[in-house]
Amino acid sequence: MPDRLRRYHRRVNQVDFISGKTRMFGIVGDPILQVRSPEMITWELHRRGVDAVLVPVQVPAAQFESVMPALMRLANFDGFVLTIPFKTRALAFADRLGLQAQVLGAVNLLVRRSDGHWSGDMFDGMGCVAAFEKRAIAIEGRRLMIMGLGGAGGAIACAMAARRPQRIRLHDLSAQRCEFIKSCIARISPATAVEAGPPTVEGMDVLINATPVGMLDDARLPLVVQSLPPSLVVFDAIVMPEQTPLLALAEQCGCSVVRGREMMLGQIPRLVDGLLNPDAVG
Amino acid sequence: MPDRLRRYHRRVNQVDFISGKTRMFGIVGDPILQVRSPEMITWELHRRGVDAVLVPVQVPAAQFESVMPALMRLANFDGFVLTIPFKTRALAFADRLGLQAQVLGAVNLLVRRSDGHWSGDMFDGMGCVAAFEKRAIAIEGRRLMIMGLGGAGGAIACAMAARRPQRIRLHDLSAQRCEFIKSCIARISPATAVEAGPPTVEGMDVLINATPVGMLDDARLPLVVQSLPPSLVVFDAIVMPEQTPLLALAEQCGCSVVRGREMMLGQIPRLVDGLLNPDAVG
Repeated sequence: MPDRLRRYHRRVNQVDFISGKTRMFGIVGDPILQVRSPEMITWELHRRGVDAVLVPVQVPAAQFESVMPALMRLANFDGFVLTIPFKTRALAFADRLGLQAQVLGAVNLLVRRSDGHWSGDMFDGMGCVAAFEKRAIAIEGRRLMIMGLGGAGGAIACAMAARRPQRIRLHDLSAQRCEFIKSCIARISPATAVEAGPPTVEGMDVLINATPVGMLDDARLPLVVQSLPPSLVVFDAIVMPEQTPLLALAEQCGCSVVRGREMMLGQIPRLVDGLLNPDAVG
Repeated sequence: MPDRLRRYHRRVNQVDFISGKTRMFGIVGDPILQVRSPEMITWELHRRGVDAVLVPVQVPAAQFESVMPALMRLANFDGFVLTIPFKTRALAFADRLGLQAQVLGAVNLLVRRSDGHWSGDMFDGMGCVAAFEKRAIAIEGRRLMIMGLGGAGGAIACAMAARRPQRIRLHDLSAQRCEFIKSCIARISPATAVEAGPPTVEGMDVLINATPVGMLDDARLPLVVQSLPPSLVVFDAIVMPEQTPLLALAEQCGCSVVRGREMMLGQIPRLVDGLLNPDAVG
């Protein structure tokens, strides 16, 4: 490494490139090309002065159950982030589970505890909570409309429930999924009123889109509406485009908006906390 | 990554940090803290403008046979460098073997070919040959004294034999190991005269030390000698210290010297050639 780059690294990161001493983390998925964690989590690790990196690990989907135990025996790999399609299947590899993982039946983080056992938890929804917290938007006591209860939406609903909103209304094309997430919320926050029904903004403080409607070139809104009350907080989990049709309408109506990118960024410090403090996970 | 660092990376390396698209290689060993390949091979990969890194992978020694097949199924890991204590045990995982590996019964590189099969070869001795070539010191037709036929010494003897020296004299504490390396050389270069016997510089052009004598604080010479003929080329495989007692005597006597560090550096481009052109290995 040229001296100039080395000095730069020392000053900014207090760590150099990968050496034999570098602690390793992996993000396990299939496919893997699209993941952003290697850059984002490695940058956060270096920002904290830790000589560690997170690298992409593509486990062929059909071989996850045979390959994952071997990865967990690597002595210099201390933790794994799980992504599509492994979040549910990875649950079986945790000796201990956090509440979000227990309730949702899925993990996106597996870490080796100091006693050698593995803990797992689901951080997907925590990035959304972190994004709201960063903007000082309260969840406690508020009324939330959540549209879309797939992997992301279910995790968002459970993470939001942990902040004790007054009421959550859920909508998903699958009635069965709605019932399941309702039962999850009831376990996490018994005091929160939960109902299922068509999307509405009537009597709501926060509108959350976790459906794919509005993604890429999709010009549709995820609910039938002409305008939104300016007091509404609108969040869209979609990352591409950054400005979805829903968020464009919300800004036009004077609403506060929270973007998918903020949720993605919000999850990084939480995941790094988990990777570096495995005994606090699960 | 800050813009300034990103621009610097682009300019120098044409690659950024690790992303989901980065191709992965691993160095597999136990322990792993001491390996230098992650820095050296990653630097050479980046110097060639390839978005790839080599990362340390510590496989507990007792679990190598169960973990290695799983590592070889990772779709974004295309090759592995093997180090202590796995070079012999890794042989079983290659579908095809290069001549050095066949003869020595050990590999330090396993790469996935374009047909999905794995090739292995032993590059340990090739770094020594590369160091001699870089200094334009001929091997062909010369007379070599090689002391010490452990992993490194045996590999050096075989790699040197592939350059068809006139004569090789071998010395090792184990007569059995001497006989084995003699038979290896006979397979690689039938025209080279091979003999075993005590270390001597009489009638030799090149003196090679691959014993640990002279390492760290060891002030001994690996052979009993008061001085060396100035026409002799002296190589010492020891890396620490850089100036061994043997090399100090050689320089004092006006000999050309080649250092262990040059062998270590010489192997890097060969290994990277193998990692990037797997179909040319084995």
